[in-house]
Amino acid sequence: MNYDELALKLHEQYGGKITIKLREEAQLDRDKLSAYYSPGVGAVSRAIADDPSALPRYTWTNNLVAVISDGSAILGLGDLGPKAAMPVMEGKALLFKHFAGIDSVPIVLDVHTPDEIVAAVKAIAPSFGAINLEDISAPKCFEVEERLKRELDIPVFHDDQHGTAVVTLAGLINAAKVTRRDLETVKVVTVGAGAAGTAIIKLLHTYGIHNIVAVDSKGILSDDRTDLNDEKRALLEYVDSSVSGSFEMALEGADVFIGVSKAGLLTPAHIARMATNPIIFALANPVPEIMPDLAHDAGVAVIATGRSDFPNQVNNALAFPGIFKGALTNGVPAITDEHKLAAAEALAALVETPTAEHIIPSPFDERVVPAVANVIC
Amino acid sequence: MNYDELALKLHEQYGGKITIKLREEAQLDRDKLSAYYSPGVGAVSRAIADDPSALPRYTWTNNLVAVISDGSAILGLGDLGPKAAMPVMEGKALLFKHFAGIDSVPIVLDVHTPDEIVAAVKAIAPSFGAINLEDISAPKCFEVEERLKRELDIPVFHDDQHGTAVVTLAGLINAAKVTRRDLETVKVVTVGAGAAGTAIIKLLHTYGIHNIVAVDSKGILSDDRTDLNDEKRALLEYVDSSVSGSFEMALEGADVFIGVSKAGLLTPAHIARMATNPIIFALANPVPEIMPDLAHDAGVAVIATGRSDFPNQVNNALAFPGIFKGALTNGVPAITDEHKLAAAEALAALVETPTAEHIIPSPFDERVVPAVANVIC
Repeated sequence: MNYDELALKLHEQYGGKITIKLREEAQLDRDKLSAYYSPGVGAVSRAIADDPSALPRYTWTNNLVAVISDGSAILGLGDLGPKAAMPVMEGKALLFKHFAGIDSVPIVLDVHTPDEIVAAVKAIAPSFGAINLEDISAPKCFEVEERLKRELDIPVFHDDQHGTAVVTLAGLINAAKVTRRDLETVKVVTVGAGAAGTAIIKLLHTYGIHNIVAVDSKGILSDDRTDLNDEKRALLEYVDSSVSGSFEMALEGADVFIGVSKAGLLTPAHIARMATNPIIFALANPVPEIMPDLAHDAGVAVIATGRSDFPNQVNNALAFPGIFKGALTNGVPAITDEHKLAAAEALAALVETPTAEHIIPSPFDERVVPAVANVIC
Repeated sequence: MNYDELALKLHEQYGGKITIKLREEAQLDRDKLSAYYSPGVGAVSRAIADDPSALPRYTWTNNLVAVISDGSAILGLGDLGPKAAMPVMEGKALLFKHFAGIDSVPIVLDVHTPDEIVAAVKAIAPSFGAINLEDISAPKCFEVEERLKRELDIPVFHDDQHGTAVVTLAGLINAAKVTRRDLETVKVVTVGAGAAGTAIIKLLHTYGIHNIVAVDSKGILSDDRTDLNDEKRALLEYVDSSVSGSFEMALEGADVFIGVSKAGLLTPAHIARMATNPIIFALANPVPEIMPDLAHDAGVAVIATGRSDFPNQVNNALAFPGIFKGALTNGVPAITDEHKLAAAEALAALVETPTAEHIIPSPFDERVVPAVANVIC
């Protein structure tokens, strides 16, 4: 199917994807209007002024996420600016509602420095119950998220980082079962050190995977690299930074390849350098680092991609709906590493008998959102 | 009815007043999701990047207003901060949807200087089709609105100013008919020079009413006042600034009193100083400057208030739904003085035979929104 044509047609036909609905659908009479607006609403304002923690009790913020982007890293398309980001953010709002019944509002920002983004998000933060950052380019996404987490008392979650990391870890837990590996001793090679790559490395490390070799477009991230920016330098403490060299050298004897890099990066010759029956996460979108058929022919035991037309799709929609649902329902002020690990384990556990073709549940599995939400507490 | 109790009960029962709904209610299958989100949505992003004016064609911004407040002047309650403003802004969103079918999102701001408010609103502006400023205290509301109007290419409208002014002018046009007065020669006294008072003076002047005496809490605004701030000094060009003195002196021979001041300000003794059969707009809320019965006993010909339990309610809901509906539907980049005058005349014309008890249409009159929207073009 040509999704481009269908997308343009559907977006134009409906004039967007979401709309506002009144919660009480019954006819609003004068008395109700006088209670929902002036003069009655004044009593609600006074109640919140007296006790600001009552905000979610009386307003829609109890179930409300801001989906925020500056449009600097839209899907795989790059920096197209805030207006071009709007259909993607509105799409995210559609996913929030569809998968978890969560209200969300797409907010695209016409500012681009970390200082300006942080200032704008802090300014509007009392309007929302949680913040989902989306499609903000690396490395500024790291500073923006860190500062907002520190300075706001509601959950802030950059989905491009942590959503991908949670689902990848869930899949890896089950892939290790399928190939009878112990994750404490596996060697993992990651390629790509942007938003998703960085978060995957950190989460795997926190889970207890300590033999990680990270590769970017210049080779292995190692102590002797002199070209690393601050964010990549900070990554060295999560990886085996004593090894240096090329991508090919990194692959020697590796059990797991995790790519968030580019189409076709991984060849059968590369796979021949890895351990037997390796595990491949080829997450480049829309064309993965290696196509599943080619990987299987080269001896790969388990392969996951970002695509819905192959088994084992690493789909953020498995993580963010339940994570935000849990955070909002349980009044969690911040999403921690422990939450992310628990979410990954909960997702992995939904696959009762993992096989090479089934290490990750489907986002259409109705158990997914409650299982994840349940551990965000 | 005790609206306070009903308000607290309804707000808590439903957890707020609005929610997000998917525009296409049918079951979303995988193909639709792939068109509404990745990968298909990328084609829509590219189309908007190529032509930013296509934003409203493909996203919900075509029917979307931001309702923005910093909580510094909530109803008559003063500065209670952004969280306390949320139920009022959410109520405004309910009115937008109920009266005009317009989607709107309540945004409360945790910043308070004009510079910060302008920066925050500009940062999020690409997310919306129009901006409704609400409950921002005077005088900063003037600077904020002026700067945003200048710097944004979408309509910006501070409803506390202009909504009230439009409906007041509409009522005054009909009150003049009832009392057989020529508005070009009437003497108008306004009391209160905050957001609403200032906008009323300017709109009446623009309409062609040139004998206006403006009063604030210190007396008549005149050239010899040395205590006026910049905004009040700028008002002098719209009023008869050669007269000075007290509120009582201002009333001598006046045809029209317009109060946006405080409960009980106007007494029968004051009315005795005015012309016979005067017109009174006693707009203080919830208790007007004089109650209608007392005013009629003192010889007033026509009285309007802000209350729904008396005839002639000056209700902003008569103006803003149609004004925004017209602006969004017709792609109007700014709401001008001409638009406001035309809206007032359209509202006045809906009352075919004005009487003392009926100078203003009801907000429940279904002709109101289309009549106003029709002239915002």
